Amino acid sequence: MTTINCDMGEAFGLYRMGDDEGLMPLIDIANVACGFHASDFNHMRATVRLARRHGVKVGAHPSLPDLQGFGRREMRIGREEMANCLIYQIGALKGFLEAEGLPLNHVKPHGSLYGMAARIEDIAQAVCDAADVFRVPVLGMAGTLHERVYPARGHRFVSEFYADLDYADDGSLIITRAHGEKDPEAAASACLRAVTDGLVTTVGGRDLPVRAESICVHSDTPNAVAVARAVRAAVQSHITPF
Amino acid sequence: MTTINCDMGEAFGLYRMGDDEGLMPLIDIANVACGFHASDFNHMRATVRLARRHGVKVGAHPSLPDLQGFGRREMRIGREEMANCLIYQIGALKGFLEAEGLPLNHVKPHGSLYGMAARIEDIAQAVCDAADVFRVPVLGMAGTLHERVYPARGHRFVSEFYADLDYADDGSLIITRAHGEKDPEAAASACLRAVTDGLVTTVGGRDLPVRAESICVHSDTPNAVAVARAVRAAVQSHITPF
Amino acid sequence: MTTINCDMGEAFGLYRMGDDEGLMPLIDIANVACGFHASDFNHMRATVRLARRHGVKVGAHPSLPDLQGFGRREMRIGREEMANCLIYQIGALKGFLEAEGLPLNHVKPHGSLYGMAARIEDIAQAVCDAADVFRVPVLGMAGTLHERVYPARGHRFVSEFYADLDYADDGSLIITRAHGEKDPEAAASACLRAVTDGLVTTVGGRDLPVRAESICVHSDTPNAVAVARAVRAAVQSHITPF
Amino acid sequence: MTTINCDMGEAFGLYRMGDDEGLMPLIDIANVACGFHASDFNHMRATVRLARRHGVKVGAHPSLPDLQGFGRREMRIGREEMANCLIYQIGALKGFLEAEGLPLNHVKPHGSLYGMAARIEDIAQAVCDAADVFRVPVLGMAGTLHERVYPARGHRFVSEFYADLDYADDGSLIITRAHGEKDPEAAASACLRAVTDGLVTTVGGRDLPVRAESICVHSDTPNAVAVARAVRAAVQSHITPF
Repeated sequence: MTTINCDMGEAFGLYRMGDDEGLMPLIDIANVACGFHASDFNHMRATVRLARRHGVKVGAHPSLPDLQGFGRREMRIGREEMANCLIYQIGALKGFLEAEGLPLNHVKPHGSLYGMAARIEDIAQAVCDAADVFRVPVLGMAGTLHERVYPARGHRFVSEFYADLDYADDGSLIITRAHGEKDPEAAASACLRAVTDGLVTTVGGRDLPVRAESICVHSDTPNAVAVARAVRAAVQSHITPF
Repeated sequence: MTTINCDMGEAFGLYRMGDDEGLMPLIDIANVACGFHASDFNHMRATVRLARRHGVKVGAHPSLPDLQGFGRREMRIGREEMANCLIYQIGALKGFLEAEGLPLNHVKPHGSLYGMAARIEDIAQAVCDAADVFRVPVLGMAGTLHERVYPARGHRFVSEFYADLDYADDGSLIITRAHGEKDPEAAASACLRAVTDGLVTTVGGRDLPVRAESICVHSDTPNAVAVARAVRAAVQSHITPF
Repeated sequence: MTTINCDMGEAFGLYRMGDDEGLMPLIDIANVACGFHASDFNHMRATVRLARRHGVKVGAHPSLPDLQGFGRREMRIGREEMANCLIYQIGALKGFLEAEGLPLNHVKPHGSLYGMAARIEDIAQAVCDAADVFRVPVLGMAGTLHERVYPARGHRFVSEFYADLDYADDGSLIITRAHGEKDPEAAASACLRAVTDGLVTTVGGRDLPVRAESICVHSDTPNAVAVARAVRAAVQSHITPF
Repeated sequence: MTTINCDMGEAFGLYRMGDDEGLMPLIDIANVACGFHASDFNHMRATVRLARRHGVKVGAHPSLPDLQGFGRREMRIGREEMANCLIYQIGALKGFLEAEGLPLNHVKPHGSLYGMAARIEDIAQAVCDAADVFRVPVLGMAGTLHERVYPARGHRFVSEFYADLDYADDGSLIITRAHGEKDPEAAASACLRAVTDGLVTTVGGRDLPVRAESICVHSDTPNAVAVARAVRAAVQSHITPF
């Protein structure tokens, strides 16, 4: 059982980012930016509306406070401050969800916050401190602090598989500054295998165990819509939104 | 019947503004800044906690997006954008209220937004659009669009009397960039008269009708604590929080 | 005698805006955004470098402080504050010009600031207050305060003709929120006529006098490169950069 | 030979920070905040004017981009981006210096940037990349990368002694989040000894060599004016501004 999730609503003011209109019909859950790495009050409202029209569930995609760096700059920040930063953003998104009659479905930390929560105890705890307030599942990466800390604090952890990123032999993701094109059929096959067999082939040719409780397609992959369409076709029968 | 309300939590980062610790024990409802003219996620959390400790009810004090101008620059903004801007801020504050187990009590627009909503139909409607989401009373000034539009849209309107500002002969407020000291006893007498007789004496010596359903004390009046203490003593028997 | 000018460097962080690489070879002077409506320190540096590589002269394109609104929200701001806001931005750009060994060529106010300076005396004076510091020509629109105030204060005024906008019968520009496509050949003919005959045909079919001391091509017109190429071919023999 | 330097102009909007009016008559050189950790275009202008009135030399006090954290959050940032960030801020300050007819005297990195430049090669090099543009001395701390990198790149390095901070036995500074009061006479004696003997007594009672080419008084030390006055009286005869 899996879902397809996608980071959404990452436009800002007049600036565009990703084909949200094209992707929304192809996904199950949207991680909506909250204004700290991308988005603003107008794009948040529009994205929540778009999700509602397509029956897509909406979670918060909060970030470190870093609009100019798109939330991809690690910064030193304490647990309490990080938790407050998250509560602010998730609360703001929840305002728009209330406006559109939708519940908050989950939280997925963005960018450097995602990476920091994967390996810094205080940051993973801060994510839980915020999740304590809103009582929703948290998306993250298996084999990291995400998996160890969230469930230990009583929060459901949903393990992601990345449709458009390559895996290194040690199970880590190979992240490039700009996401490149991805062959849709190869992505679809890999996702299906991850869902059904729980395995991924690394760039070094090894098979590693993975848990694809949700499949992430990045909206800024150049051919994101084609990738999402192929992945959806491949895993359709396995989808059960949480 | 009245209450004492005060704008609170207007610090930002290392910067301080107002004696929130001194004022909180003296007021009934706090209008908490939401990060757009003042405050940030840390100060919002701390202010909500302080209010909870003193049994003070908390409302949102949202603003135009203008941190550097403290929300005192009028700007051209449409109804939908304004409403989204408000929902974002009120939602963010509600996150902290949920974290501390408090309900959202009301909304009071800040600064230029307050003034614009008093005389620009689209802005007053935008305040209602946001109030539609959160279903709480709105504080404002009688005799303006606040009073005409909010109730017409089904929102409870709470009319403010200003303890530390002078009234012109036409009923408008005399607003100075920096608030000056105010004689506490004079302020207290004026508040009591406003509450019991519904009258204020203008700077020109005329008596005008006012409705003091809530009394506003500004936290940035230099002797705000003394003013609040005197006003509280004077009107204590008339206080019934909404 | 004329030039082709273009607003440049309006990207921000990961966000892109306009085809600066395609346009730079086709223009004479670049109005470079200074971080208040668009751009940031990285894009400013890159844009100045790109201009230098193509021998394009660089001026500042400062704005009201309004990144989320792309500088298109009018706001109430006093003369001294506006002047300070401009000096900050122009100074910042000049830092990058010094880094790349280029002089500051001119100033062209952006968006709502351009419009406000055209009709609000204090704002036009604030532009001059900033121009006093840097002693460079100011681009603007003939028949407005731009033309009346800047020369009266001793600053060279350079009158713009807009290649990609239509003129109303009263000489004002017809501005749409998003710029539409423009027929390159029609634009080129209109520019040549403006340069050689000093006339433009309005949407109502009237001929009005114009002064095309510089021709503005907007980088966010969808086919901006094609328009710039056609205009350049048409007016090439008339170009003399100031 | 020494000078007294002080971080200045760290107000923001309506927020105040430090007694600039009280301190300016007591110092030789002002490190003026550039809007990234504190200050804005209005306060920069006012601070430069105040310095000019008192014959105080003005340098730039640039920061990481972090207004809410007052530049005290370390963040991951590359050399080129850091250099651009500095050029932007220094250029902006230089605009105000040109407006007031003053030269740029020096650069002193602020907060976490100061600390990062002291121990991260790329950040120290980025400071030099910016200093290359403006050709001014850089203030820093002896025994760190400041001292090794700046002179190696041809920039004059000015070693600071801290009047209001304690030194640990290893020569490092004992930094508290909020600066506490400091006994003015003790500070003055320590400064005089640092200037004349090149020694400081650590909190552990050891004597360590120091170079007090400039003495830093922090404007946010609660009794900063008293400290500055006492230090000035003590070292007056040794002062020679660079």
